[in-house]
Amino acid sequence: MGIDCGTEITGYGVVESDDRSRNPRLVCCGFGAIRLSKQKTMPKRLMQVFDELTLALERWQPEVVAVEEVFYSVNAKSALKLGQVRGVALLAAAKLGLPLAEYAPLKIKSSVVGYGMASKEQVKFMVARLLELAEAPEPPDAADALAVAICHLHTAQTLLLQEVRG
Amino acid sequence: MGIDCGTEITGYGVVESDDRSRNPRLVCCGFGAIRLSKQKTMPKRLMQVFDELTLALERWQPEVVAVEEVFYSVNAKSALKLGQVRGVALLAAAKLGLPLAEYAPLKIKSSVVGYGMASKEQVKFMVARLLELAEAPEPPDAADALAVAICHLHTAQTLLLQEVRG
Repeated sequence: MGIDCGTEITGYGVVESDDRSRNPRLVCCGFGAIRLSKQKTMPKRLMQVFDELTLALERWQPEVVAVEEVFYSVNAKSALKLGQVRGVALLAAAKLGLPLAEYAPLKIKSSVVGYGMASKEQVKFMVARLLELAEAPEPPDAADALAVAICHLHTAQTLLLQEVRG
Repeated sequence: MGIDCGTEITGYGVVESDDRSRNPRLVCCGFGAIRLSKQKTMPKRLMQVFDELTLALERWQPEVVAVEEVFYSVNAKSALKLGQVRGVALLAAAKLGLPLAEYAPLKIKSSVVGYGMASKEQVKFMVARLLELAEAPEPPDAADALAVAICHLHTAQTLLLQEVRG
């Protein structure tokens, strides 16, 4: 399961690899988004992220959780708010004993689109294509979460091939 | 209970006000610190903060949780890490249905020491004095947490007096 943390919307997406061949087929199991109301206090929003994410993890039972590495160019105020959401998301995964994988934004884009400076639109388009979806996943946060999951499977695949060859 | 979140040590401290008179006596019920090992992964550290804080909240059963408002002058990288810890701390309080009060650093210092630009040492000294402790609380993170709790009681007291007079 890939998770894309955000202070307004946190997306998640579950992707499965059908085999361990060189070009495994990727299957989208499901995706969703947790929308936080600005009317709610911050503790209530954090509880919503934790509870809904725990439900999604229990429903999909992923083997691994993958997240984007922190994007440091945001300002300190946004970083702290994002950190709070990210903290409870990582806690939800840790509480269920799931390992965590982190990938840099550049790595995710190049893994999905083929190059690191790809636009949001290109990522969405390629996510839909790789997962053979009729439409691009919405909201974009869910598409981003699926992209992280795809990146993890591609990377895990590469590591596996390296092991086999090594 | 005051909580002072930190990426290495998170302090907490419980203070009780003995009555609702104008100058209530403050009593320190207890304090402690959660020390995070750098050997641990971030998700494990977040789980430790959440679990130990939940235990402390269940043990002391405070009526309110008070934290320092975010200090925005730190850089984005530190802010995100601090945010993660703060997120699980706020979640622990929210899970137990506790209300949250936030105070600016200046407000906390002026409430405890009498002026906002007080040093860490002055805060520690005044915390010990106000709570009639033989020694200054250690580590400093626990003293800071007690300071937030004292600030909350002082402020709540003022609000109460305003209500009575209003």
